[in-house]
Amino acid sequence: MPSTSLEYPKLPYNKVNRYDSRATYALETIHQIVNNCPILHVSFTVPDSPFPTILPMIGQMGSFDRPSADTGDVLELYLHGYVSSRFINLSRNASKQGEGEGEKAEEGLPICVAASQVDGLVLSLTPNSHSYNYRSATLFGHATLVTDIEEKLYAMELITNSVVRNRYQHTRVPPNAAEMQSTGVLRVKIAAGSAKLRTGMPSDEKADLKNEEVLDKVWTGVVPLHYTLGEPIPGPYNRVDKVPQYLREFVQDTNSYARELAVEEATKPMAAKSKTDHDDD
Amino acid sequence: MPSTSLEYPKLPYNKVNRYDSRATYALETIHQIVNNCPILHVSFTVPDSPFPTILPMIGQMGSFDRPSADTGDVLELYLHGYVSSRFINLSRNASKQGEGEGEKAEEGLPICVAASQVDGLVLSLTPNSHSYNYRSATLFGHATLVTDIEEKLYAMELITNSVVRNRYQHTRVPPNAAEMQSTGVLRVKIAAGSAKLRTGMPSDEKADLKNEEVLDKVWTGVVPLHYTLGEPIPGPYNRVDKVPQYLREFVQDTNSYARELAVEEATKPMAAKSKTDHDDD
Repeated sequence: MPSTSLEYPKLPYNKVNRYDSRATYALETIHQIVNNCPILHVSFTVPDSPFPTILPMIGQMGSFDRPSADTGDVLELYLHGYVSSRFINLSRNASKQGEGEGEKAEEGLPICVAASQVDGLVLSLTPNSHSYNYRSATLFGHATLVTDIEEKLYAMELITNSVVRNRYQHTRVPPNAAEMQSTGVLRVKIAAGSAKLRTGMPSDEKADLKNEEVLDKVWTGVVPLHYTLGEPIPGPYNRVDKVPQYLREFVQDTNSYARELAVEEATKPMAAKSKTDHDDD
Repeated sequence: MPSTSLEYPKLPYNKVNRYDSRATYALETIHQIVNNCPILHVSFTVPDSPFPTILPMIGQMGSFDRPSADTGDVLELYLHGYVSSRFINLSRNASKQGEGEGEKAEEGLPICVAASQVDGLVLSLTPNSHSYNYRSATLFGHATLVTDIEEKLYAMELITNSVVRNRYQHTRVPPNAAEMQSTGVLRVKIAAGSAKLRTGMPSDEKADLKNEEVLDKVWTGVVPLHYTLGEPIPGPYNRVDKVPQYLREFVQDTNSYARELAVEEATKPMAAKSKTDHDDD
C-alpha cells in the first residue's frame, strides 16, 4: 500500500476547469469509480469518419504483474466487450505509426474512458440550480490487444468477478482453446485521469433563499438514486434449485451498499472550497 | 404520428456489424433509450490533444419547431451540463471551417452521444457466455449553442422535467436574465444513430449444455438490475413539510416501471435471427 496517496498528472486534456472544487486526481478515487461502474463508455476517433465513436464496454482496473496491487496503486484498465475488427486494426495501426516515426510514441489506440454514476436528484428552488449527486471518472490512455494467454486469463477472471463477486470459480473453467481465441481483451495503459464528484444538498442563490413565497412553495432536497439487483430468475436449463449462497449474499451486499451510499452522498457536506458560480451541472 | 416507423440511415460510422440481430435503427427505440437515460456520454475530438474527450451530460430529444412531436419523429437532442468555453469555441470554429470551405458542411461540432442502461446480469455456464441485458443507443450529430431565448426556455423545461416529471412548473420560474445568460444549452442535429439491445436468458454452447457435471453445479439465469429512487430527503432550507404528490407519484411510478422492465427484459425471448457467434458481449 502506498504511504502517500498517488495522483494523476494534471495535463491540458484531463485538467478540470469548471467546478474544480469537485475535482480529484487521486488514483484511488478514480479507480474505485471505474471498478464500481457496471458499464464504461470508451471513445476513440475513426479515420475517414466525421465523428468520434463511443462503445459501451465492461472493464476493471488491475495489474497482471502485481495482482495484489491496491486500488490506489498504478494500475492498468482491462476492457472486455465489443472488440471489433475495426477497433483492433486501429489499435495495430496506431502502434505501427508510433514505431515508424522513431519517436517514443505510446503503443496502441488513444482512447478516452468514462465511468459515471448518478447518486441522487438534487431538487432546488430554481431549474438552474437543479443538479445530480454523481461520481464521474475519466481516464485517458492507449489500448492494445492482450495476446498473452496468462494475462488474458487474469483479465477474464477479474472482469467476470466484477459482474458477480467470486462468480468465475463457480462456472465451467478454465476457458477452452476456442474460447480463449474468440475472447477479445484490451489492456489500457493510463496516461492521465480525473474525477468529479458532487455530494450533498441543494444550493440556491441568496435572492431565492430570501424569497418567502418561493420557500413556502417549492420542495427542496435530494432524491437518492441507486442501482438495485432484483430476485435472481433461473434460466431455462438451470438445475441448481436454490440460488447459491455466494450469489444471494452478493445481491444483498450490493443492494445495501448502493442504498446506503446514495443516502450518505446526499447528507454529506458539499465540496465547495471555491464555489463562486451557481450550481447547475 | 408517422404511419410507418422511421429509421436512421445505415452509414459506415453507425452501422452495427457484430450481433447485428440485436441492432435497430428505429428512431422511436433510439430516442426512448436516450430519453430514459439519466446521464448521457458525449464524445468529441480536441485539437492538439492525443485523446478524444468524453463529458457526462443531461439530455432529451425534442423539437422546438413542433413541440408536440412524437418520440418516433425526427427530433433534435438538447444537451445541458458542462458546456465549457472549450466546447463552445470548438463548436464555433467547426461552424466557421464549414463556411470557409464553401462546402455544404454541417454547422457545429461533430459529436457522438451514447446512452446505455444495464437491465440485468446474465449468468451462464462459462465466463465467456456471461453477458448483460442492456439497451444502448448511439447518436452522431453536430452540436451548436442555442442562443434563441424561447428555444433555450423550451430546452430548460424539457430537461428539468426529464429529471422529475412536471418539476419545472413547481419551481421558481421563469429563469431571470442572469440565469438565462449563464445557462448553456446545446442543440444537436442528428446525422445518424443506432441502438443495440439484449434481452432474455443465458445462452450457452451445445457442448456445455450436454455437460451434466457443469449443469448440476452452475446456477444460470438473470439477475434483474434497475435504478431505484429512494425516499426523498428534505434539504436544510426546505419548508414544504410533506413530499408533494407529483414528486411522490413520480418516485413510485419510476420505481415500479424500472423494476418491471428489468424482469420483463429478462423473460423476453432473445433477439437472435442470425446468431452464429457465442454470447460474450
